[in-house]
Amino acid sequence: MEQAVTQPQTFDRVLSSMCTRPHPVAREAAERFLATNPGDPETYRSVAELESAVIDRLGEVTGLDNPRGYVASGGTEANIQAVRAARNRTDVAEPNVVAPASVHFSFQKAASLLDVDLRTAPVGTDRRADPDAMAELVDSDTALIVGVAGTTEYGRIDPIPALADLAADADAAFHVDAAWGGFALPFTDHEWHFAHAAVDTMTIDPHKLGRAAVPAGGFLARDPETMDALAVETPYLESTSQATLTGTRSGAGVASAAAALDELWPAGYRETYERAQANADWLAGAFAARGFDVVDPVLPLVAVDLPDALFDSLTDRGWRLARTARGELRVVCMPHVTREMLEAFCRDVDDCREGPVGT
Amino acid sequence: MEQAVTQPQTFDRVLSSMCTRPHPVAREAAERFLATNPGDPETYRSVAELESAVIDRLGEVTGLDNPRGYVASGGTEANIQAVRAARNRTDVAEPNVVAPASVHFSFQKAASLLDVDLRTAPVGTDRRADPDAMAELVDSDTALIVGVAGTTEYGRIDPIPALADLAADADAAFHVDAAWGGFALPFTDHEWHFAHAAVDTMTIDPHKLGRAAVPAGGFLARDPETMDALAVETPYLESTSQATLTGTRSGAGVASAAAALDELWPAGYRETYERAQANADWLAGAFAARGFDVVDPVLPLVAVDLPDALFDSLTDRGWRLARTARGELRVVCMPHVTREMLEAFCRDVDDCREGPVGT
Repeated sequence: MEQAVTQPQTFDRVLSSMCTRPHPVAREAAERFLATNPGDPETYRSVAELESAVIDRLGEVTGLDNPRGYVASGGTEANIQAVRAARNRTDVAEPNVVAPASVHFSFQKAASLLDVDLRTAPVGTDRRADPDAMAELVDSDTALIVGVAGTTEYGRIDPIPALADLAADADAAFHVDAAWGGFALPFTDHEWHFAHAAVDTMTIDPHKLGRAAVPAGGFLARDPETMDALAVETPYLESTSQATLTGTRSGAGVASAAAALDELWPAGYRETYERAQANADWLAGAFAARGFDVVDPVLPLVAVDLPDALFDSLTDRGWRLARTARGELRVVCMPHVTREMLEAFCRDVDDCREGPVGT
Repeated sequence: MEQAVTQPQTFDRVLSSMCTRPHPVAREAAERFLATNPGDPETYRSVAELESAVIDRLGEVTGLDNPRGYVASGGTEANIQAVRAARNRTDVAEPNVVAPASVHFSFQKAASLLDVDLRTAPVGTDRRADPDAMAELVDSDTALIVGVAGTTEYGRIDPIPALADLAADADAAFHVDAAWGGFALPFTDHEWHFAHAAVDTMTIDPHKLGRAAVPAGGFLARDPETMDALAVETPYLESTSQATLTGTRSGAGVASAAAALDELWPAGYRETYERAQANADWLAGAFAARGFDVVDPVLPLVAVDLPDALFDSLTDRGWRLARTARGELRVVCMPHVTREMLEAFCRDVDDCREGPVGT
């Protein structure tokens, strides 16, 4: 009976995750739909209906009429699928994908899996994709251009319309990875979605800032041909084809995404975003006041140049922290991150240094 | 509030699924661990510990000391990973995979995804893999041989030791897909697992006959090199590499698998298997007595040659049914399938025909 007492981590020191404690309505729906499999829509019909409702809602969030897509396990799967669809739709023998160096590592996974050439271009000094640098990597074998709307490391939004133009000029597909940023960006002035540019596919994860339960990622496509390019035939299922990467999928994730979107879109998500952004701004200010180099939080994500020893001391105190590739501390102000948590964190930062600032 | 009242299907007419209602301890654990992500083991440490415990237990079930692997989304992901590992470990430019025609369609998906050549050999009259027919397809480019321990359509167990010999002769890796059969086979005399033959990788899904909550598949590997062949580097996660296909994964699935294995291995699974097999034998007899052609249920899965009109009438009455590729009715006697359900089903079969047998 050992495992009967194993408890999950609490969220009161988690600053590293792009997942979060689900909203209560999302948790309730996840529990209700635990014993369902949207991968078998003829058997599990009501969860299949909820999945359609989620995709319709995600179309509203991302400016897309008549959206195609499905609820994936997360951003990695959705990004893989974007690369896979582009690869499957191109005629060239050795397709390549052109992306900014700031793309999530799932594109490395996709490239390895799908045997395409991933070409990454340096980002600008603003940490955003540089369309000119990317243009230099594009050639007649380019099947896909990728932009990020909310980078994993610094929360930056790439110049999506300019990248869409680059894709159009190259006759390549265009994918936007808004896995994390997609539920914050509707409340900003950024241009990032299907109605702002000729975006073909998008990743947007309800289980990140959408406050659904894990696993509930989102893969969206403008055209049915994209889904057709992913489909394989399915004997022994009464549905006739399957466009997903995995087979069995989480009905809990689907139902919780449906419930969260129903409850929170748009007002609840606006409130979630504004609170998270205010926390990020506060934390950035608190670190700056302590003399650290802080990367301005464009979205609710703060990167700070922290000495390794301090990072390790904070980890020893139970804080769950993550780093950028350059080694900066990276705090993701998810919905479970409160001002009180951040104040406690800053007290520990002070404690772990020689002494408080100014002494 | 529409979605607040949407309910999942009940299981009282589901005869089509290889998933099932989770065991109560599995459901409880899934609910407890809903807000965790085993894809980020440094942040979500306790669920990462449970995942290690699951893999250790699956090693016990499958005769493997010191097992490697992880809890996947299901059999499709695990089968894809087996093909991916074999492809990544081979030196040949255009690798092929040799499998019986009875393999699950996830191997078609894997072949398309990974750009390998899937060669399927006709099965024998006993519906099992024919090693001689497979040997004819093997050549110096063969990276993987596949056997199935509990086929999706007829529940057949391939001659695993003979296929392992074939793989050894070809210097190819050997994968066994026991996604569905793996929790029944320990209580039979079949030779199917790591201790019976030189098996390199295996699929065995806790969320099928293991009575865990969806999604909880299992990918097992004998050697660490297999996992190394799947790993990609992971900046921004404090763990340094990731061998899974997806990124974010279901902590609910992991915890429920841990709880189910803890509760049920081995006695509870034996009881589950024996009850399911008795139900399958009973149903096969009931159909035979009504004059239908029945495929003998070697595992708890009954295939019956049923007229299309009768299949459709039963579907209209709310039964969730599946078909083999040849069109036979396929009833999977999962743990939620009771004798009373099967009796009710047979009454509906009688009702839907002109009249009862003999009139």
